[in-house]
Amino acid sequence: MNIGIDMMGGDFAPLEAVKGLQTYLSTSNSRATLYCIGNEAELELLFAEYSLVSPELVIVHASQVIDMDEHATKAFKEKQDSSIAVGFRTLAAGKVDAFISAGNTGAMLVGAFYSIKAIAGVHRPAIASIVPKVSGATGILLDVGLNADCKPENLNQFALLGSLYAKDVFGIENPKVGLLNVGEEEGKGNILTQATYPLLKENRGINFIGNIEGRDVFLDKADVMICDGFTGNIILKMAESLYDAAKERNIPDTFMHRFNYEDVGGTPVLGVAKPIVIGHGISNATAFSNMILLAEKMVASNICGHIIDQFKA
Amino acid sequence: MNIGIDMMGGDFAPLEAVKGLQTYLSTSNSRATLYCIGNEAELELLFAEYSLVSPELVIVHASQVIDMDEHATKAFKEKQDSSIAVGFRTLAAGKVDAFISAGNTGAMLVGAFYSIKAIAGVHRPAIASIVPKVSGATGILLDVGLNADCKPENLNQFALLGSLYAKDVFGIENPKVGLLNVGEEEGKGNILTQATYPLLKENRGINFIGNIEGRDVFLDKADVMICDGFTGNIILKMAESLYDAAKERNIPDTFMHRFNYEDVGGTPVLGVAKPIVIGHGISNATAFSNMILLAEKMVASNICGHIIDQFKA
Repeated sequence: MNIGIDMMGGDFAPLEAVKGLQTYLSTSNSRATLYCIGNEAELELLFAEYSLVSPELVIVHASQVIDMDEHATKAFKEKQDSSIAVGFRTLAAGKVDAFISAGNTGAMLVGAFYSIKAIAGVHRPAIASIVPKVSGATGILLDVGLNADCKPENLNQFALLGSLYAKDVFGIENPKVGLLNVGEEEGKGNILTQATYPLLKENRGINFIGNIEGRDVFLDKADVMICDGFTGNIILKMAESLYDAAKERNIPDTFMHRFNYEDVGGTPVLGVAKPIVIGHGISNATAFSNMILLAEKMVASNICGHIIDQFKA
Repeated sequence: MNIGIDMMGGDFAPLEAVKGLQTYLSTSNSRATLYCIGNEAELELLFAEYSLVSPELVIVHASQVIDMDEHATKAFKEKQDSSIAVGFRTLAAGKVDAFISAGNTGAMLVGAFYSIKAIAGVHRPAIASIVPKVSGATGILLDVGLNADCKPENLNQFALLGSLYAKDVFGIENPKVGLLNVGEEEGKGNILTQATYPLLKENRGINFIGNIEGRDVFLDKADVMICDGFTGNIILKMAESLYDAAKERNIPDTFMHRFNYEDVGGTPVLGVAKPIVIGHGISNATAFSNMILLAEKMVASNICGHIIDQFKA
């Protein structure tokens, strides 16, 4: 298995990316070959400094970097030798099986949509976040930001994408799908959720358990929680801020600490043809290492193949 | 000042309502006359049991109760001698200055809209919740549930309603208004927030500070946070569940404990002609006492008068 890593993406790159490789190599049993995409000279110096010598590390030179605040489409087009553009070419050519980056999110999406493309039948790819449950279990929430406005059919597709992700990557058999809503009964909700409910009910590919409310997000009622990208993004960012609050206030609680973005690593783009993981701009070594592990699981489980199969007309 | 209290509303009524009177009388310095609406015989027995003898307590007999799961409009119409219907008649007649209930929310809204009515110029009344800030400050979030689907003009009005509430009831001078959104820059968001931003920017009656994100909800960036009722309801219920999680896990943290619904008491219906406070179904003595205090503040500050003035064409 070959995984491409944008070494230049994120606020603390390439240093934290390099340390992330170190963490990964010293803690993981699996052995993917890691294609480290970035400035060769800079990376060689850092690899030497951190004594990173491994046959599993391959440097792929990229002379440019797309900065965090650059216009995504423009930068992706113009900076053809940027680590993100090189990463996507490497992925499209099949030299790597997955690509991860903590760099410019917009540029990652441009690459995902235009270089790798959506899977046939998937109208709107989505990004999924894990949500820690009070019980210790892990839930999946999507969409958390790609699609601020959704149609009922989009949410219905998210349910299937999320179910496959929960099963393939988190080992949740027959994941329970809940529609995030403002009431439990069918018929409750805004125009979008009211129209989505019947589609989910008819969807034979998922295990729909009905509406869930805000109070159920951290409980075990549903494994896969479906919402539009506006609602999901606000929930995700609220949850992340709770970790900050807990840390700042020295709350030594395992549940609160599971909101730590570092442990999450990154979020996959679900519904595009190959595994792509987008990391937080502030990703540190732990986050990079966890992103590699997530990409590994996505490749090993063949989630993209399963999505392709399920969305065949 | 006279405040009407539905003694029969809520899962633990009338007992917790009676205990709430006791809490209020023994802790509050202010002295509203409390019109206790409910079954006279039952209340007299409980008042005797809890040694509640006070010239500020007036029992108003109501022979019926609207149950929590009854159809709101039907029950309000048919049960004319229910504590909620009697409460609204007492309020409409001017015998009390505010009315609070932890009973059937739907029936409370029917009463608010049809017996008291929206203030001229207010297209959609809203309910507002307090949001504890990490700093210890208090924020206001609205709408938290009345309007699952909103138009830009509704959100623009919520901004003014919330600003007046923050000022009159929480003493926040020139409250900072933030539009809850998925990005900071103007132009970000879903169709609704994109169209709302320019209205807020032009609104001379508020102190608009721009978009806020999910991560800002618990921070001091904005005092008044504006969103549609779908988003607000999910945030509110999530926040309430965090208190449950903190309590269950014995997290002894003051911030987390401020999510306790008891301390919140109830939520006002903003934009109707008289002060109305709706409590949680599971309201206990503390919650009832705090609802009385909230109603008192709404009456004393003349918030409804200020809303009427501000919405005059």
